[in-house]
Amino acid sequence: MGILIANALSVIPDGEGISVGRHDIYVNGTDIAGIDEPPSGFAPSEVIDGTRLLAIPGLVNAHTHTYMSVMRNVADDLAFADWLMGTVEPIEDRMEAEDAYWGSLLTQAEMIRSGTTCFNDQQMHIGQTTAAVRDSGMRAVISRGLVGESYDDGDRRLNEARREMAEFSDCDRLSFRLGPHAPYSCSPDYLRLVADVAWQENLGIHIHIAESQFETDTLRSNHGCTPVEYVLNAGIFEVPTIAAHCIRLEKDDFDILAENGVSVVTCPASNMKLGNGFAPVPEMMGAGINVCLGTDGAASNNSQSMIREMGLVTLIHKGTHGTPQCVSATESFLMATRNAAKALGLPVGTLEVGRKADIALIDLDSPSMTPLGNPVAALSYSANGSEVDTVLIDGKLVMRKRELLTIDEERVLHEMNRICERLGLARMD
Amino acid sequence: MGILIANALSVIPDGEGISVGRHDIYVNGTDIAGIDEPPSGFAPSEVIDGTRLLAIPGLVNAHTHTYMSVMRNVADDLAFADWLMGTVEPIEDRMEAEDAYWGSLLTQAEMIRSGTTCFNDQQMHIGQTTAAVRDSGMRAVISRGLVGESYDDGDRRLNEARREMAEFSDCDRLSFRLGPHAPYSCSPDYLRLVADVAWQENLGIHIHIAESQFETDTLRSNHGCTPVEYVLNAGIFEVPTIAAHCIRLEKDDFDILAENGVSVVTCPASNMKLGNGFAPVPEMMGAGINVCLGTDGAASNNSQSMIREMGLVTLIHKGTHGTPQCVSATESFLMATRNAAKALGLPVGTLEVGRKADIALIDLDSPSMTPLGNPVAALSYSANGSEVDTVLIDGKLVMRKRELLTIDEERVLHEMNRICERLGLARMD
Repeated sequence: MGILIANALSVIPDGEGISVGRHDIYVNGTDIAGIDEPPSGFAPSEVIDGTRLLAIPGLVNAHTHTYMSVMRNVADDLAFADWLMGTVEPIEDRMEAEDAYWGSLLTQAEMIRSGTTCFNDQQMHIGQTTAAVRDSGMRAVISRGLVGESYDDGDRRLNEARREMAEFSDCDRLSFRLGPHAPYSCSPDYLRLVADVAWQENLGIHIHIAESQFETDTLRSNHGCTPVEYVLNAGIFEVPTIAAHCIRLEKDDFDILAENGVSVVTCPASNMKLGNGFAPVPEMMGAGINVCLGTDGAASNNSQSMIREMGLVTLIHKGTHGTPQCVSATESFLMATRNAAKALGLPVGTLEVGRKADIALIDLDSPSMTPLGNPVAALSYSANGSEVDTVLIDGKLVMRKRELLTIDEERVLHEMNRICERLGLARMD
Repeated sequence: MGILIANALSVIPDGEGISVGRHDIYVNGTDIAGIDEPPSGFAPSEVIDGTRLLAIPGLVNAHTHTYMSVMRNVADDLAFADWLMGTVEPIEDRMEAEDAYWGSLLTQAEMIRSGTTCFNDQQMHIGQTTAAVRDSGMRAVISRGLVGESYDDGDRRLNEARREMAEFSDCDRLSFRLGPHAPYSCSPDYLRLVADVAWQENLGIHIHIAESQFETDTLRSNHGCTPVEYVLNAGIFEVPTIAAHCIRLEKDDFDILAENGVSVVTCPASNMKLGNGFAPVPEMMGAGINVCLGTDGAASNNSQSMIREMGLVTLIHKGTHGTPQCVSATESFLMATRNAAKALGLPVGTLEVGRKADIALIDLDSPSMTPLGNPVAALSYSANGSEVDTVLIDGKLVMRKRELLTIDEERVLHEMNRICERLGLARMD
């Protein structure tokens, strides 16, 4: 039993970088069991002809909120207060828990279609994104969003998070982190509590840091420090931390993040769309920080395609820095694969023996992939995501020739249209 | 004989803006002959059920060089000199004229697939892009690139342009402009000659202006003026002018462009990818300049999708200006449709009776278009282009349910792979 992807043009690790060549990839159970060399006794139940396919490790979306696709395309081009208080929060208030399940499943359908196999999610509606992941066949790391001023505040949400971890402990594709929301929504005491629990229970942290000028101004004015220093002082960085955004960094912040092994997730579309600007990605890379890539939720980035985000991260810093050599296609590829796997501590992100078989196969017979001088450049600069033909997660086919095998897409679209009608968001008149 | 697009959610003009509602669109011959009201005696030979489709005017790519897809994904992340002199020019030297035909056809396949129906092209290989347009069914405005120091230099290329116009005068989908390349590659005398010919022969101009700091520095140092002033002084703006890029504008340049009715084409991906930065799009709009959108050629923007460009133009200026209200989805839609039609002087760009039937129909049953709170926002912020289901140009179906009807895509991909092998650009090993 197993799958052989035969003779595929493949992006494989090569020292610190990557190289592209033709390889046979042997998938056995949930793992990549061989490259070019079959594992002993391998008898494939399925052979995929890779002659006209590009094999890449499945993309890893290192920061999103999948349930938020319920709010896609309903709150655009608005000032921040009108967006958050005027639109997003009132919709969240009217959402039922089950809406989050369908929202997450919709996002996952879009993600699989564009080559994403794993995501790091901070959620609100306990048990919903997790259930959607169990059903979709995707891999995910889930944090329940935690906000609080004091221990009592946090206790309820922390206990919800613990219950969820117990309930879904049988799904190997799911793992968990703790998700203190942000410096401006968590007190120092509360962050310290979360750090202690994370330390005791061997969990990583997933937090937003330095997303806006508002946040840095607030922290400076109320606590006399930067958001990074605030989180450092609360002890959060003593456990493995993934920090989303990090747009507004001051000089010392780069060293703090690097020295503490914090992985930063840059979310270019969301950062621009909310008017927060451009994260200092080349400077973070220069400081030795492990930089990953994420879409953020669909309320601030209507697209959940990592292919789109890879294009953005390569282009915008060339624009801000005035040089075509800033953030290469290879760097963007590594942000969306290897760096993210390292941040999440998961054995994915590269096509190597022993890694989980999370693989995207891209159709080379498409106009945007032709000619194919550099397949890795094509992913960032010319692909639109629809070239993804076939996707494996955990050794199982979840999409074959553009047909989703584990998600009933028609049902998901139907449920979303029903939900949006109920929430008054429909525009199909 | 005609086509009825029945009950489609449609983006139609509404005063200075647009509105979205359900409409029946009657296509007769090459034109939109009725909206909601059939023209007298209308008997459709085909009815397209629009219930689950969004009808928009076909997108207009207002600046590109379609033959350049031959050079896609072969010269990325390079310093400008390595890109131009080290890679692009040596490939151009080895290109045969016929390669430009296939390159243009490949780009046109990608454009139709992503909803573009018309493009404004500055070409090098006379007769090739024009022939590809005749064969593809697309609409295009062609300029032969003109560079020169003196009258003699220009005469040969001008005469080539004239011969091409005569040769293709029978194709109604083709029209022509004169294409003086740029201020740094044309002398004042030569620009004046081109302006005179354009005036006498009733042709518009398509030129690159103020694309880089190098150009503005060179003009200032050699001629003591800005690129815009240089072109103004040569008399170019006395004929209808489309100016690509306009990144480096000084204060008076905005007024000059506005007062002379110059249409500017912003090309965000290309401008970032070459490290040239961000055009002052909000400021140009504020000055009353007609701003359009283009991809530029595939050597500097590997994607030729206007959907991608619409997303970029909405996002990047929110980033540079620090506000989510900068360049709305509606403004990006108008740049890619109505504004471009106005610039080109063509009766396209809106769904209105009497306009040419250049229409893109977008599948609403796709994850990226669900939910559909605002279909126009969805085009810029969540679509990837592959949602385009059906395309009409000049009243004829050129794509139906994602199948190209006028371009033999398999043949085009085969020819491109053959060409790239000959040019030493293949990477299919």
